[in-house]
Amino acid sequence: MAQVWLWIGVAGMAIGSVVFGWGAHNARSDRWKIIYLLNFFICLIAAGLYLTMALGQGFNIVHDRPTFWVRYVTWFLSTPLLLLDLAYLGSSSLPLTASLIGSNAFMIATGFVATMTDKPKNYIWYIVSCFAYLAVAYLLVQPYRVEAVRQHPRAKKAFTKLLTVHLVLWTLYPVVWILASTGFNVIEQAGEAFGYTSLDLLSKVGFGFLSLNTMSTLEKADEAPSPQYESAI
Amino acid sequence: MAQVWLWIGVAGMAIGSVVFGWGAHNARSDRWKIIYLLNFFICLIAAGLYLTMALGQGFNIVHDRPTFWVRYVTWFLSTPLLLLDLAYLGSSSLPLTASLIGSNAFMIATGFVATMTDKPKNYIWYIVSCFAYLAVAYLLVQPYRVEAVRQHPRAKKAFTKLLTVHLVLWTLYPVVWILASTGFNVIEQAGEAFGYTSLDLLSKVGFGFLSLNTMSTLEKADEAPSPQYESAI
Amino acid sequence: MAQVWLWIGVAGMAIGSVVFGWGAHNARSDRWKIIYLLNFFICLIAAGLYLTMALGQGFNIVHDRPTFWVRYVTWFLSTPLLLLDLAYLGSSSLPLTASLIGSNAFMIATGFVATMTDKPKNYIWYIVSCFAYLAVAYLLVQPYRVEAVRQHPRAKKAFTKLLTVHLVLWTLYPVVWILASTGFNVIEQAGEAFGYTSLDLLSKVGFGFLSLNTMSTLEKADEAPSPQYESAI
Repeated sequence: MAQVWLWIGVAGMAIGSVVFGWGAHNARSDRWKIIYLLNFFICLIAAGLYLTMALGQGFNIVHDRPTFWVRYVTWFLSTPLLLLDLAYLGSSSLPLTASLIGSNAFMIATGFVATMTDKPKNYIWYIVSCFAYLAVAYLLVQPYRVEAVRQHPRAKKAFTKLLTVHLVLWTLYPVVWILASTGFNVIEQAGEAFGYTSLDLLSKVGFGFLSLNTMSTLEKADEAPSPQYESAI
Repeated sequence: MAQVWLWIGVAGMAIGSVVFGWGAHNARSDRWKIIYLLNFFICLIAAGLYLTMALGQGFNIVHDRPTFWVRYVTWFLSTPLLLLDLAYLGSSSLPLTASLIGSNAFMIATGFVATMTDKPKNYIWYIVSCFAYLAVAYLLVQPYRVEAVRQHPRAKKAFTKLLTVHLVLWTLYPVVWILASTGFNVIEQAGEAFGYTSLDLLSKVGFGFLSLNTMSTLEKADEAPSPQYESAI
Repeated sequence: MAQVWLWIGVAGMAIGSVVFGWGAHNARSDRWKIIYLLNFFICLIAAGLYLTMALGQGFNIVHDRPTFWVRYVTWFLSTPLLLLDLAYLGSSSLPLTASLIGSNAFMIATGFVATMTDKPKNYIWYIVSCFAYLAVAYLLVQPYRVEAVRQHPRAKKAFTKLLTVHLVLWTLYPVVWILASTGFNVIEQAGEAFGYTSLDLLSKVGFGFLSLNTMSTLEKADEAPSPQYESAI
């Protein structure tokens, strides 16, 4: 059963890669090409991850739990691209982008250690990783949103939507972790595979489309003719 | 016998490191320093690789095949520098450079998985890695060449030579892979060591000199006095 | 006994992370924010390292020596940030910054191989790593200092102090290595833990404060009103 979800992951990520790759190839400007490329590589890395898992690789029995440690290897590479996606859309400053990417790397690395550690020590690492996630969430809700709205005042709504979707999806990852065999063991392996696969598809392929949509809103807002209507919007 | 080729690799890469390092130290401009530095670090990483292998390290018996997995670790670090070399010479745009480096990283990573995987599953990864290589080759032959020639119209011939040498050498790597024990097992370990070592020396030390030569051609072409002679060249 | 030093490391690095993180949050300009952020992530990575070691993880018996290989994983990530700290203060050029970071990466990687290798082969790698360190030291004492003083002529003294502290601390790392069980085995495990922990605290938390101090000196020097007094200072 878990196996089915992994092949669905392969198919979904492969489709995402083809769509975003094709978009990058035909992009009408560098701005669009960059967004398409980021989404393309996010899906490509994930396609490699799901193919690895579907072929029964990247997997070990760690402390009596079957563990796909390869997830963390690929998340370490794909999550910074997701944050670059956000940073690019929000025209974030260098210090903010670096803070986001650094906190995220710490979150994935400590999450990986949590996954490879025996109970109950793993909960220490889980809590450390959750704190890193709170830092990422704070950076997005506060300085990121403020900077993005300052740069694109007419696109406030688009950023609120983008951030809400992003934060809801990312918050569910540690929830799956704590419910699966890595934590309290209340969902089975198939449930864990379903949870991570659907979150990955939504936060990579789905979020990719949302980022393109946001880009299009931004472009319209930035090109809008007359500044005197600004306050009305 | 295989051992001899590894020590030849150590010597060749060490000589390359010294020559390019000395060149970087005495470079007459930042432009030259950057090209020398890229070639220096490419050879330095490879010197570390060959020393590791010559000392009998970075090596495991994987699925009954003696496997120098350390090659892939160092290729993961040196191949992006080689592509930066090309991108710097061709004044490539950011999206193109990122596409090249991303596709290349996917190629090396999946090639590594192919090498660590048992037959026949390894052929799936081999094919995936070959597709990534085709993407790299396409990016070089099409957008890279077009951008490079647009920026340096008088150096068309130099870029054709650079790309031809690069693509011939890189295409031979998957050929050695499929002929060695990783694939159809028609060449012995000494043949594999000879193949990879000579390819590495040509594509790192040899290609390094070619890149310096191209830089010098570019500088002459860009400094050429009168635009009216352009069509004649 | 060694365990005590590891928990002191956790506490020290956690305090450093909080202080520098708070500073980054309240920084009055992007220039200050960048320095605080670099120091924050240096301490955060080290806090993760010491927590790993204090919990008895990141550790294996390698060739009959108890070896915390995780040190090298985190040094690989934190030392480039330390060099970026220096490069940022000294307004170093791109080729110089890249040379520093590349040589440093080679030093840590070969140091890691030295640590994982059996005697006497490990001494080959130790010597290679020491040569890489000599390259880093040369780059700092010569081109780095020259560029930094050219950009900030009134801060010559500040850079001399910064470099002296940096080089004394970094030189002591290979000394601890060669005296510990990795080398001549004349200091015990507690001595090794004391050595590395105190060096880490001094070169990360201590050096962080020194870098802030240098930044403040630079700002005063650059803002100093009248160029005619320059020669007198």
